[in-house]
Amino acid sequence: MTYSINIDRVEKDLYQLAKFGFNEKDKGIYRQGFTDPDWESRLWLMEYFESYGLKVQMDGAGNVCARLEPEGGESQPTIIIASHLDSVPAGGIFDGTLGVVAGLECIRIIQENNIPFRYPIEIIATSEEEGRFGGMLGAQALTGSLTLGWLENAKDPTGEKITDAMAKYGLDYHQALHAVRAPETIKAFLELHIEQGPVLEASKKTIGVVEGISGVFKWLIKFIGKADHAGTAPMNLRSDAFMGLAEFAHEIGRIIEENGTDKTRLTIGRVELKPGYAHTVPGQAEFTLVGRDMSEEVMKDVSDSCRKALSAIARRHRLMFEYEQMSWLEPKACSQYVMDVIEKNTQELGYSYQLMPSGAGHDAQFFSDITPTGMIFIPSVGGVSHAPDEWSHWSDVEKGCNVLLNSLLTIQHDNAEGKA
Amino acid sequence: MTYSINIDRVEKDLYQLAKFGFNEKDKGIYRQGFTDPDWESRLWLMEYFESYGLKVQMDGAGNVCARLEPEGGESQPTIIIASHLDSVPAGGIFDGTLGVVAGLECIRIIQENNIPFRYPIEIIATSEEEGRFGGMLGAQALTGSLTLGWLENAKDPTGEKITDAMAKYGLDYHQALHAVRAPETIKAFLELHIEQGPVLEASKKTIGVVEGISGVFKWLIKFIGKADHAGTAPMNLRSDAFMGLAEFAHEIGRIIEENGTDKTRLTIGRVELKPGYAHTVPGQAEFTLVGRDMSEEVMKDVSDSCRKALSAIARRHRLMFEYEQMSWLEPKACSQYVMDVIEKNTQELGYSYQLMPSGAGHDAQFFSDITPTGMIFIPSVGGVSHAPDEWSHWSDVEKGCNVLLNSLLTIQHDNAEGKA
Repeated sequence: MTYSINIDRVEKDLYQLAKFGFNEKDKGIYRQGFTDPDWESRLWLMEYFESYGLKVQMDGAGNVCARLEPEGGESQPTIIIASHLDSVPAGGIFDGTLGVVAGLECIRIIQENNIPFRYPIEIIATSEEEGRFGGMLGAQALTGSLTLGWLENAKDPTGEKITDAMAKYGLDYHQALHAVRAPETIKAFLELHIEQGPVLEASKKTIGVVEGISGVFKWLIKFIGKADHAGTAPMNLRSDAFMGLAEFAHEIGRIIEENGTDKTRLTIGRVELKPGYAHTVPGQAEFTLVGRDMSEEVMKDVSDSCRKALSAIARRHRLMFEYEQMSWLEPKACSQYVMDVIEKNTQELGYSYQLMPSGAGHDAQFFSDITPTGMIFIPSVGGVSHAPDEWSHWSDVEKGCNVLLNSLLTIQHDNAEGKA
Repeated sequence: MTYSINIDRVEKDLYQLAKFGFNEKDKGIYRQGFTDPDWESRLWLMEYFESYGLKVQMDGAGNVCARLEPEGGESQPTIIIASHLDSVPAGGIFDGTLGVVAGLECIRIIQENNIPFRYPIEIIATSEEEGRFGGMLGAQALTGSLTLGWLENAKDPTGEKITDAMAKYGLDYHQALHAVRAPETIKAFLELHIEQGPVLEASKKTIGVVEGISGVFKWLIKFIGKADHAGTAPMNLRSDAFMGLAEFAHEIGRIIEENGTDKTRLTIGRVELKPGYAHTVPGQAEFTLVGRDMSEEVMKDVSDSCRKALSAIARRHRLMFEYEQMSWLEPKACSQYVMDVIEKNTQELGYSYQLMPSGAGHDAQFFSDITPTGMIFIPSVGGVSHAPDEWSHWSDVEKGCNVLLNSLLTIQHDNAEGKA
């Protein structure tokens, strides 16, 4: 049998949280980490959790943690359901908050139906996931990835230090390093999130069973040629840095076909030409290349192929070529066990679904290092997020919550040995 | 027989003019139109011309005009040798000044050798050619292209009006409209100039016989797609505006091969992506396209082909496409008669040469509308100009001056009927 959540309550809670940081002008949510709206939402949420009789605390990183314990099972490892409470500037009402509200709704269903459970359930509203100061502070703190150095260096785009921002709300940043959980205290980690992309909508599927978080590399590339008068320099005597870039962009399709998968992404998002005048052949083209895949092997093959293409194009166009690898983050796989649980429950609920990677980063990626981790996606209308018109249909929200609830219950009741 | 100029005097005069606006730091010339160095160089030049017994005047546009008249031929139409005295910021010592100094050297040779001549010779150092206020003020004024509206609207990049800049040096801008010459008062127009491009150096030729000034069109093009998260948006679901631009850039070679000539140039010099973040698929790409050719027919074919390619690429990449034609200037052909004179004299002098278009604009393009016009190019080392390291070898300068001198004498002695 399967249980069903009450979508009206989820809707009401999401609208309630949307009041924190709502901007009347652009209808966007401004609830960036360690701002007044963020803080007020955390204090409100703590009271709200307490009204359900949960054990509530805020840890030193600002994570709001609410715990429901089974009688006699208080010391069992915990199943964590988490997502973040903070937003980007001008964000939407689902990103992050959905995963928190859905977790609470699971607890309400368990309480109302007196459903027996074996492991404590903890709902965590994580802090500063969206990146005002770099991102995923709460998840890093909980999973032991946070360091004193990170804290003391992190600044927002205006130059405000995270340590000062935390102090404003009475948090001593040293305490964030005490938020770490021992892996053996966690049974599993679950996160329900909007997809933030167009895949489910395009495939007309309701549930995305997330296989993992794509690895990502970021390169800063420079082609250096010669700035010439666009009238006096014949085409065959130019060293046009932009034409080198255009040829590389043209090769991206081939590079993915030859070395990538359907999960590979290669993006040129920023381009700067020098001198950048209409009547001057570009002497320099600086651009970013961001690559992603679920397999680190594939990432290596794709990046090797990019390097070869760049080098050949530079020779062909008489350009010098420099590149700097700004970052290389390996893919994070979800737990096969948790994926199976999510898939089985989705099937039993009769919802359409597909396996898919998450191209965006999530708190889950840090938890995947220390505990069996799974993520559930629901469709984003038009693939939009991080914008006021971010939307997901309530019917999809309801189905996502149902998958979360029943997956939680499956993990609760599975024989722990050799599984979760 | 041929005459030869004295390169030592030309060298000395060029170094003398280089003192006006020379910057010790970057070794560049800063002699923009209607600045103190520009003005001081004009006053110096007037005195210098007078020292050779020439009739000297400055017209209302700031052009310095020095005239040598044949006895009894004062009212004959004039052969004008001209180029500009102003420079770009951080310019070199040859651009413009070479054509003025070379003209004076021709006069010195004629005077010293008592060479008989039929038509008055006028050396004109034109004003504001380089474009501080839009460019070619002096040539526009002399050829009747200047209007009151142009003068009253022209501003430099800081917003200073040309009318105010002229007033600083005692010029009433209304008088610039009295500088116009009647076409019947001009016999021919000659300009010696550095190539400012790499063609002669690459072909190891000394003299460029200029066929005309390329026509030029400038478009501002916008591809509008959809800004997506670079992680969550699969390659096949994107509307990536930059990939559209890259594909168009890739078509440029084909478009020229199919519709252009060896004189066609197509340049993408400025590119702006929005939002322009490494992790975001570009939702918009705005860029310039500048096209040139010596034939307006070819310009039309090439631009038609560009429009078709842009439109097809927009459809293929699910982009919207807008373009605005910022300007369309038709090509200006040099006089076949003057070209023949230059070619014949170059052959007689034993110099290597080639016919070629001028991709850059010059005062000559305005004179080509009203009188038989010819231009002579000499090689630019590395194709460089508009920079402190602009250079031309003195041996090439000497040869260019010799071609100018002997071409002037040929036009003087040719039977005017049916020729010049």
